[in-house]
Amino acid sequence: MATVSALSPSELRFIRAARVAHLATAGRNSQPHVIPICFVFDGKHFYSPIDEKPKRTTPAKLKRVRNLQENAQAAMVIDRYSEDWKKLAYVLIHGGAKILYSGAAHVRAVRRLRRKYPQYRQMEIHTRPMIQIRPLRWTFWGNP
Amino acid sequence: MATVSALSPSELRFIRAARVAHLATAGRNSQPHVIPICFVFDGKHFYSPIDEKPKRTTPAKLKRVRNLQENAQAAMVIDRYSEDWKKLAYVLIHGGAKILYSGAAHVRAVRRLRRKYPQYRQMEIHTRPMIQIRPLRWTFWGNP
Repeated sequence: MATVSALSPSELRFIRAARVAHLATAGRNSQPHVIPICFVFDGKHFYSPIDEKPKRTTPAKLKRVRNLQENAQAAMVIDRYSEDWKKLAYVLIHGGAKILYSGAAHVRAVRRLRRKYPQYRQMEIHTRPMIQIRPLRWTFWGNP
Repeated sequence: MATVSALSPSELRFIRAARVAHLATAGRNSQPHVIPICFVFDGKHFYSPIDEKPKRTTPAKLKRVRNLQENAQAAMVIDRYSEDWKKLAYVLIHGGAKILYSGAAHVRAVRRLRRKYPQYRQMEIHTRPMIQIRPLRWTFWGNP
């Protein structure tokens, strides 16, 4: 466990280089939910857009949002898989989540996301809600 | 959503080919938790061993077990990331989890895990607890 300022350069690199994370939420009924997400980290908060990727099931898409409205506790993990298990690593982040609909933090997150993921430049993320996660607890495993 | 028998061959292939999944649990306090796991699927249940990978933090390791003892609801996601977002896909499984300590299902799961992951052949998974997940609901997204 560490505060953000205590992250080592290699831990920070590991977090920033990752293209995908996995976000877990749980609603009022304590039923866990988990999906892969794209994200950015600005040194203080994680941001993940509610984007528009095509899908078969509409309700599942917003499940994470509904869960977070009922229960703001979130967990996300960033990990590396390798067949050489000496190289396995993850960082697990527990935090509080908020849904942003607009505002300066939303605008900055959109800009940052579009820098990291060119795919977002043509997508409507600036008009969509954004999940903001404030890390409260960090758990490192292996050698990120 | 689909029952196991309704999985298409390509969906089943996608699930079986994956080397890693992400398991979300939530304890009595509804705090979500998520970690990458190795797993096998025998057509009915998923199995994931409590293995011995090196770690810095001992308590976190068993968090998923303690959570499942408090709340048997689990979610796991198997996904594919690609920079070509037309190829993104996941399957999200909601299910009920049980911890197995021994017995025929435990023995079969160990054998299956060691076939899929040669890394486990030298590891003590046969003497360790095993998470068994019975899928109750499947959600497919993209084209697995």
